[in-house]
Amino acid sequence: MSVDVGTELPSQSFPVTRASLVRYAGASGDFNPIHWNERFAREVGLPNVIAHGMFTMAEAVRVVTDWLGDPGRLEAYSVRFTRPVPVPDDDAGTVIEVSGKVTELLDDARAKVMLTATHEGQKILGNAVAIVRLP
Amino acid sequence: MSVDVGTELPSQSFPVTRASLVRYAGASGDFNPIHWNERFAREVGLPNVIAHGMFTMAEAVRVVTDWLGDPGRLEAYSVRFTRPVPVPDDDAGTVIEVSGKVTELLDDARAKVMLTATHEGQKILGNAVAIVRLP
Repeated sequence: MSVDVGTELPSQSFPVTRASLVRYAGASGDFNPIHWNERFAREVGLPNVIAHGMFTMAEAVRVVTDWLGDPGRLEAYSVRFTRPVPVPDDDAGTVIEVSGKVTELLDDARAKVMLTATHEGQKILGNAVAIVRLP
Repeated sequence: MSVDVGTELPSQSFPVTRASLVRYAGASGDFNPIHWNERFAREVGLPNVIAHGMFTMAEAVRVVTDWLGDPGRLEAYSVRFTRPVPVPDDDAGTVIEVSGKVTELLDDARAKVMLTATHEGQKILGNAVAIVRLP
């Protein structure tokens, strides 16, 4: 794998549906109704049901782990949740778009990757950084 | 425990909310949207989101296991799902009412219990029979 500062990872789009969130609620144990109950979400001032931040974070990093071919090569990962992802009530749901770029080569064949995740053209994760061991 | 044909088990009421069903979806792996998506449920002709039949079945038998004090004493259990339980979108949800009666004493200190489970006055389980080992 030839990697340099500036190397771009293959971008990916990830669908997010209400069904994704019901599944993620069970998988994560986070049953906050803002993630599955539109009435409740609107009552507390949200525009709609919103995706779990950790779900969005997990989806986004697939760009990195798919690129590496091995999730074990992800050494560290951090993001700021800057904007929620509202999920409409239909089968198509919505989509998040994720791209990544190598911004620094580190010691021990490691690299720093910055991710950009957007929803409808707006950034949803801030300062999304993955530290990886290169193959 | 003094048990005879005709002995009545303490009745219980069990709340069922949308949150119960989202949790049960994750616990059971049954993510059919009729159990959590009102739009979808109505589109397929149901009056509302409905409870998983297995959830209702499991709740109902608590009348038996609470009475026995030990779920391990439940040897067999069968029901017919005769009527769905629609669950409204509010925090109170709805309620199922369950009573039970010993209808037969069997060999080896076992007994047959018939359960009656109703929702808004109508039976939701048919031929609900538990075979138990008495303490």
